[in-house]
Amino acid sequence: MDINCDLGESYEAFLTGRDEEILDYVTSINIACGYHAGDHSIMHQTVRNAIRKNVHIGAHPGYPDREGFGRRDMAFSPAEIYDMIVYQVGALQAYVHIEKGTVHHIKPHGALYNQSANDKEKASAIVHAVYDLHPQLILYCLAGSQMAEIARDKGLQVYEEVFSDRRYHSNGTLVSRQEPNALIQTEEEMLEHVKGILTANEVLSIESQKIKVAAHTLCIHGDGPHALDFAKKIAALRRQLHQQ
Amino acid sequence: MDINCDLGESYEAFLTGRDEEILDYVTSINIACGYHAGDHSIMHQTVRNAIRKNVHIGAHPGYPDREGFGRRDMAFSPAEIYDMIVYQVGALQAYVHIEKGTVHHIKPHGALYNQSANDKEKASAIVHAVYDLHPQLILYCLAGSQMAEIARDKGLQVYEEVFSDRRYHSNGTLVSRQEPNALIQTEEEMLEHVKGILTANEVLSIESQKIKVAAHTLCIHGDGPHALDFAKKIAALRRQLHQQ
Amino acid sequence: MDINCDLGESYEAFLTGRDEEILDYVTSINIACGYHAGDHSIMHQTVRNAIRKNVHIGAHPGYPDREGFGRRDMAFSPAEIYDMIVYQVGALQAYVHIEKGTVHHIKPHGALYNQSANDKEKASAIVHAVYDLHPQLILYCLAGSQMAEIARDKGLQVYEEVFSDRRYHSNGTLVSRQEPNALIQTEEEMLEHVKGILTANEVLSIESQKIKVAAHTLCIHGDGPHALDFAKKIAALRRQLHQQ
Amino acid sequence: MDINCDLGESYEAFLTGRDEEILDYVTSINIACGYHAGDHSIMHQTVRNAIRKNVHIGAHPGYPDREGFGRRDMAFSPAEIYDMIVYQVGALQAYVHIEKGTVHHIKPHGALYNQSANDKEKASAIVHAVYDLHPQLILYCLAGSQMAEIARDKGLQVYEEVFSDRRYHSNGTLVSRQEPNALIQTEEEMLEHVKGILTANEVLSIESQKIKVAAHTLCIHGDGPHALDFAKKIAALRRQLHQQ
Repeated sequence: MDINCDLGESYEAFLTGRDEEILDYVTSINIACGYHAGDHSIMHQTVRNAIRKNVHIGAHPGYPDREGFGRRDMAFSPAEIYDMIVYQVGALQAYVHIEKGTVHHIKPHGALYNQSANDKEKASAIVHAVYDLHPQLILYCLAGSQMAEIARDKGLQVYEEVFSDRRYHSNGTLVSRQEPNALIQTEEEMLEHVKGILTANEVLSIESQKIKVAAHTLCIHGDGPHALDFAKKIAALRRQLHQQ
Repeated sequence: MDINCDLGESYEAFLTGRDEEILDYVTSINIACGYHAGDHSIMHQTVRNAIRKNVHIGAHPGYPDREGFGRRDMAFSPAEIYDMIVYQVGALQAYVHIEKGTVHHIKPHGALYNQSANDKEKASAIVHAVYDLHPQLILYCLAGSQMAEIARDKGLQVYEEVFSDRRYHSNGTLVSRQEPNALIQTEEEMLEHVKGILTANEVLSIESQKIKVAAHTLCIHGDGPHALDFAKKIAALRRQLHQQ
Repeated sequence: MDINCDLGESYEAFLTGRDEEILDYVTSINIACGYHAGDHSIMHQTVRNAIRKNVHIGAHPGYPDREGFGRRDMAFSPAEIYDMIVYQVGALQAYVHIEKGTVHHIKPHGALYNQSANDKEKASAIVHAVYDLHPQLILYCLAGSQMAEIARDKGLQVYEEVFSDRRYHSNGTLVSRQEPNALIQTEEEMLEHVKGILTANEVLSIESQKIKVAAHTLCIHGDGPHALDFAKKIAALRRQLHQQ
Repeated sequence: MDINCDLGESYEAFLTGRDEEILDYVTSINIACGYHAGDHSIMHQTVRNAIRKNVHIGAHPGYPDREGFGRRDMAFSPAEIYDMIVYQVGALQAYVHIEKGTVHHIKPHGALYNQSANDKEKASAIVHAVYDLHPQLILYCLAGSQMAEIARDKGLQVYEEVFSDRRYHSNGTLVSRQEPNALIQTEEEMLEHVKGILTANEVLSIESQKIKVAAHTLCIHGDGPHALDFAKKIAALRRQLHQQ
């Protein structure tokens, strides 16, 4: 008898319990707004969970490219970037309004985050969209980026961001995901890396230099098989450092 | 310091090693063709892997509803169903042609599978599309469905299908996924259920009757955290029964 | 020499001047919110134009089915319908907020409009979504529908709607678009039909009966080659009736 | 009484009679394959019409970006470009097979056409995909592009292409659509431009130089309000030149 199996469905809609559990180990989340990932049901559910668990809610707008998970560079004019930020944040605001919460911040996703971090026109489009939506919204930006400066000049509050699982160049930029060594793979290295950030505002670049990363927020990943595990370890590390 | 995390991204593109490993434990696969899941890269990769592992390749066309994973009923005319089968199978055929393999069968997915199983016009649209594409293609159908009959009348070879993890009514139809008990949850029950199918062409319905399910192919799931595990167990069970 | 031409591109993005011109002949518009049609750029532009021309702005949410223009029935639970209304209206609200306007009403589109008009659970999902978004929003409903009643019971203001180019049954329901005579084709018949509505709250059903249609709003089409022409004719007819 | 109108639906699915009529005035067409435009129904219908009217059928694959009509640059690896060509051409081949026709050529669309014309890796990906699909397929390329050379080196037959409504630089490249003067706007200028191509293999560049454009095929547009009109005029011009 034949045994058959559906394969190649790697985009399957799946809702894991993990999303909810991870809320116990973070202080803020960035919710995908339906362009690169997420949909109306998942957004509403995630907003509800975040409010119940008292975690800061952020919008996580990205490029309209679900198959590429918003990680592929695309050519958008600043006007279109402005409009796509407004669309996605507007949709999230509506769920937060209905659930009587507050949108705390905006963090662009993937290629939108990277392509605009140090592109003055694109960064400016994002900053203006956020400001026009609500001047009290905090903008999460790559630490040391032009976008951070432009946002502060406009009067927005900025959280400069570092990553728990990404490697850095000596000039403070992230190693591109196109490079084989972009991601920190082992738990040991990741914890060492995070410890440097939390205790000394410092990371070791791939060029083997200690560099300063003055950050207001640390990004950990919500996906992947080990996400929950990493979140717990980092939360524990932070607690432990706090007690010293 | 704030710790942030991206959530609500449940449709993320991810490519697990699992897809490849599971090929060692099945005899045929059904490849999503880009409508409900999959894309051009995943399709090509899956075709390559299947040919290398000598597993029968099937097309798995579905409704154009990626967010709903092709599981939501949609109103399509028979002509549109015909056209969407041709589109998706045509795309898969091209990869198989390039990799010098053969398309072995067609298995409709999700709501398309269910809505057409016992709808004469829709079933007929699928049967004609498959026949017009290539009269040697095998059509995988719900065991005992009208579609199976219509396909045989047209001269197509049919594989009637049973499911390793779905519960049945006494009249041989599947318990709807809308029902809480649609899916078999534990490994024990699943193995018991599969053993009945493999040894006696029999399953126990949710109305507690033993019913006959004469099938040519058994469907196991390729997704979910336990997919690989289940595939191994079922393969082992089949081997063991074979030796007795 | 060969002469080639791109064909079959019937979904092409095109922005005609017509959209802007038609604003001179209507008192309110329903803006597609990106699910069945429209996108972030078109939405923003349309909101800007409507505010400049002092036309009431409505959200026009539909099913997520761009290829089918939101006209295909799809199976959604009431919870999903609630969530998809919130998403789309939320996005529109953001543009209107930025441009310092007001969202005046919500009008569901296509299959969402039809499938929920007389389905209590779906109608209720829409009514609750609109109420939760903002209790002052007006809901545009099929005249005489259950949805109109449910909305009034909830405390929403309702505009019952009739159509300038659709034929009616004697029981007040629309002739389905699946029927060949669903649409009024000639300008003469359309003007006769509209005149009956504007002067006597009456239309002639396809069963040749005069029936009452007590409506607060008349829908004219914004697309098609003759849209602008029809809009002008209807505006002229209204002016003329007013002067009598 | 309020008069409302749906606006901002510029992506509406519409099927004009124009697509069919234009077939009388061209010798080959390029059919959108569902990525940037078109869908399974339109593709099948267009294939049927083309076969009936005895017009050469070409596949017109593009980037997966329906909202942007495939005109936005996107970052794809050569492997992904190869895979997306195979997917789209494969789908078209299936309709052509069923309708007992032949696929005559492949012409990449929009940003895919432009980004790969003079990018060796991308051009090579397209050439290999076309060759692997079927070595007899003709590739339509920008006249004078690197892609034309690479295709000939691989052994493919190439049709170099010029455009009836695009302006050129003196080096033979197209003026970018980002530039205000990219498109020829008046009928007079367009006919002058086409006449130069048909009689002397020559166009006047925007830098006011007469340049050579040796082409095997002339592209006219199938969309826009004047498409049919232009097609007729160009067909008439060609007939007239032939008689001299």
